[in-house]
Amino acid sequence: MLRTEVRELKRVKLREPVLVEGLPGLALVGRLAVGYLVEALGAEKFAELYSPHFPYYVIVDERGRIRLPKGEFYCWRSPDKGPDLIFLIGDSQAQTNQGQYEVASCVLDFARKHGVKTVVTVGGYRTDRGGSRVVCASTDEELLKKALELGAVKSPPGSPIVGIAGLLLGLTTMMDMRAICLLGETKGHLPDPRAAKNVLKVLTSFLGVEVDLSGLDKSIAEAERMEEALMSIRVEEVLRKRQRKPEESRRPEEYIY
Amino acid sequence: MLRTEVRELKRVKLREPVLVEGLPGLALVGRLAVGYLVEALGAEKFAELYSPHFPYYVIVDERGRIRLPKGEFYCWRSPDKGPDLIFLIGDSQAQTNQGQYEVASCVLDFARKHGVKTVVTVGGYRTDRGGSRVVCASTDEELLKKALELGAVKSPPGSPIVGIAGLLLGLTTMMDMRAICLLGETKGHLPDPRAAKNVLKVLTSFLGVEVDLSGLDKSIAEAERMEEALMSIRVEEVLRKRQRKPEESRRPEEYIY
Amino acid sequence: MLRTEVRELKRVKLREPVLVEGLPGLALVGRLAVGYLVEALGAEKFAELYSPHFPYYVIVDERGRIRLPKGEFYCWRSPDKGPDLIFLIGDSQAQTNQGQYEVASCVLDFARKHGVKTVVTVGGYRTDRGGSRVVCASTDEELLKKALELGAVKSPPGSPIVGIAGLLLGLTTMMDMRAICLLGETKGHLPDPRAAKNVLKVLTSFLGVEVDLSGLDKSIAEAERMEEALMSIRVEEVLRKRQRKPEESRRPEEYIY
Amino acid sequence: MLRTEVRELKRVKLREPVLVEGLPGLALVGRLAVGYLVEALGAEKFAELYSPHFPYYVIVDERGRIRLPKGEFYCWRSPDKGPDLIFLIGDSQAQTNQGQYEVASCVLDFARKHGVKTVVTVGGYRTDRGGSRVVCASTDEELLKKALELGAVKSPPGSPIVGIAGLLLGLTTMMDMRAICLLGETKGHLPDPRAAKNVLKVLTSFLGVEVDLSGLDKSIAEAERMEEALMSIRVEEVLRKRQRKPEESRRPEEYIY
Repeated sequence: MLRTEVRELKRVKLREPVLVEGLPGLALVGRLAVGYLVEALGAEKFAELYSPHFPYYVIVDERGRIRLPKGEFYCWRSPDKGPDLIFLIGDSQAQTNQGQYEVASCVLDFARKHGVKTVVTVGGYRTDRGGSRVVCASTDEELLKKALELGAVKSPPGSPIVGIAGLLLGLTTMMDMRAICLLGETKGHLPDPRAAKNVLKVLTSFLGVEVDLSGLDKSIAEAERMEEALMSIRVEEVLRKRQRKPEESRRPEEYIY
Repeated sequence: MLRTEVRELKRVKLREPVLVEGLPGLALVGRLAVGYLVEALGAEKFAELYSPHFPYYVIVDERGRIRLPKGEFYCWRSPDKGPDLIFLIGDSQAQTNQGQYEVASCVLDFARKHGVKTVVTVGGYRTDRGGSRVVCASTDEELLKKALELGAVKSPPGSPIVGIAGLLLGLTTMMDMRAICLLGETKGHLPDPRAAKNVLKVLTSFLGVEVDLSGLDKSIAEAERMEEALMSIRVEEVLRKRQRKPEESRRPEEYIY
Repeated sequence: MLRTEVRELKRVKLREPVLVEGLPGLALVGRLAVGYLVEALGAEKFAELYSPHFPYYVIVDERGRIRLPKGEFYCWRSPDKGPDLIFLIGDSQAQTNQGQYEVASCVLDFARKHGVKTVVTVGGYRTDRGGSRVVCASTDEELLKKALELGAVKSPPGSPIVGIAGLLLGLTTMMDMRAICLLGETKGHLPDPRAAKNVLKVLTSFLGVEVDLSGLDKSIAEAERMEEALMSIRVEEVLRKRQRKPEESRRPEEYIY
Repeated sequence: MLRTEVRELKRVKLREPVLVEGLPGLALVGRLAVGYLVEALGAEKFAELYSPHFPYYVIVDERGRIRLPKGEFYCWRSPDKGPDLIFLIGDSQAQTNQGQYEVASCVLDFARKHGVKTVVTVGGYRTDRGGSRVVCASTDEELLKKALELGAVKSPPGSPIVGIAGLLLGLTTMMDMRAICLLGETKGHLPDPRAAKNVLKVLTSFLGVEVDLSGLDKSIAEAERMEEALMSIRVEEVLRKRQRKPEESRRPEEYIY
């Protein structure tokens, strides 16, 4: 494999579909959100994307099956007058600078072939304090207005949007498409299904689909348990250092954690 | 996008223009200087340069608009017998070794297409003590002499000129063009509008244009305030360490900052 | 040399051969195991693989001969109805992300040309505690079943298989071939001929060849001596630190080893 | 510039020339040795090699002239029946893995075009204790024998020869050429003109040219002065640490230098 390529598994005809991208990124917010939507809507896989810029390993899943890192395209046909949808989820982003541009270009070429005019990318937005807002940025005033009406807030200027979620936005401007990205606030340490749920609230309204999001609550509870466990491990470390030297004055630089 | 490319936004006819390059580099000296000139002269944008070697993110500006990192070509027609000018400013340099050569080659191919025979690159020159000189180096004796007459000083031998400011100089030797680079002395920590103003004094005379440079004074005052603030933070840190251990002998290796 | 290439040294006709890959990887398990098989079966070299993604040095062997890093293809014809075999051993894996995909693709193109339908890759499986199991993963249920019957255990899900041992597995799915990988448990520090021998017990039965594996016992004894020596060096270091400060209280962070 | 290229400055006809390579490497041994030979023999420059894999800067020389990093080919015609010579010196080696292979291949393609059948590469051989031997390795028994008769010693097996000095050796095996490399022992810290002189003693005899090597003695004296100065700086540092704590017991880990 010398170039990024898309392998079509079946021919589909879609009506001016919207592309929704959720490859793994910060705190897996995009991957979790879009992956959830693919399952909830019962979307149908119709193509795969491979690249020599993806990591050079294979993944072994819980059933012992082996796969190369890849992107997967799913489609869903709207039962009413809403737009059809193409979802992109997968295992990884490109690992090289040129690879990032190559993969994003390949995705948009494939999208254009299927009549896509609007692209929504989904990801995480890093904040130290955490938060539950959905930050958005768009190449199009109308899309931006729609997202703001649904409760998203405008991205502060200056912070770049890194990786495919950003590149797809930038490259659509050269291709007669418009794009918006929805980023859920997250501290960024762990996979953050709560940020994914926050984004999904906006995303589902934005796309005009109704989806029961309570299926994420179990993951959210688990993630919160994991985070508390991690916090208590850190607290224990600090206490242990204190106990070791009860008679010496404690110097600030000792609290390294 | 698989290769570096220039997208022309409008056709322009220029009279043996001089290319003036100011992409972001050390202390943003080149970017600030040439950016200021573009604004002061009211130069007109006519092309954009994109590359898969630019960083793989998009930038969100203060109005919430999104853009890929890019170079921008502006043109200005001289009202008298002076040369027309093409300015190149932008967001970034290439992030890979080959990318640096590819972008510089692409810029010169585009310049040659527009009849450019002379190239001026602008950047910063790192000195520990700071300073306000403008250092120059050239592939052509005549250009060098002209810059020295305007108050620039010759670059000391040995120190390489890194990045596009240097590569454009080197590659012009293969293309029947001549080039000079003007580098403002700077400590290099922060964006340095004062170094940019020093370079502009030489650059504007060199190009034969009259431009009011006082517009930079506000940025210079802000940069000086920022630098003083940074200095006092460092002084405070040292004092705080001293106060913490008044009775112990201070060992030099404690002053690590 | 601008691309990965295979140079055929002689034309061979093989009967639906199985490709067995053992390039250097974790603890050299694959390289030792497959290298041993090549020698024990008296396999015949018939092609070499070179790549600009292999390290940029040459190797000087014990006879003073010089060679570029390369892969070597050996063939062996089964005396009975068992499959013919093609072995791939060599000096190195590719050093770049794209290079890994390029080399693996080149290997499979060459294998396909020779009628290969089944690929076996061999390597190490890192465990902290060591162990003597052979872990396997496959793209094919039948191959997996056969390996499990021979005493291998299924790879736990989640841990990716990195490098050519994994990529060959992944890429065969696109080429109408099936593949299995056999990984010997190893701590990973040193070349591990004992893990190689464990894998060979499964591999030889899997391939239907009879090979005397006692030839590895000498290397295994040497490796064990080397490991004991390394352990005692570490123990000595700790003791030396203790002795140096008999009267001071020992603080845990002093035991840095 | 998108690919490595050679630019011929003049057409030359040489009689089965030997290529002698001396690009900058360990302690600049090769660059100093071959550069000295080019000057001493009054060799004539006839081609230049450029590459997007060379560093992305330009060099400013002592006369203020600017140049891209490049390789330079010089030729010398033997006054008697000895072989003509092509020398390759320059500013740098390639900075990427593929670039190393691309540059070496380009050099050999150019050499072959000029009828080269024998290649000699020159570099440094790192030893902790220093030394004055010339280590050699060859793809050809005859060349090796000749070098050993001239006082060189065979390279110990195992240590790879890194960079272009090694790659040229390896790639000649694919091109119906033979090659030998001569490496002067050096500690490797500083440019080592003494190691260069040691290599030149063997190299000049090997090539059958007579050259007065005393011209290197001045550089050797300067290098020795520089090395003594560096040693005394280190001794001073240790003494200064000792003086700071006269009453405390000195612990080995304090002597960090």
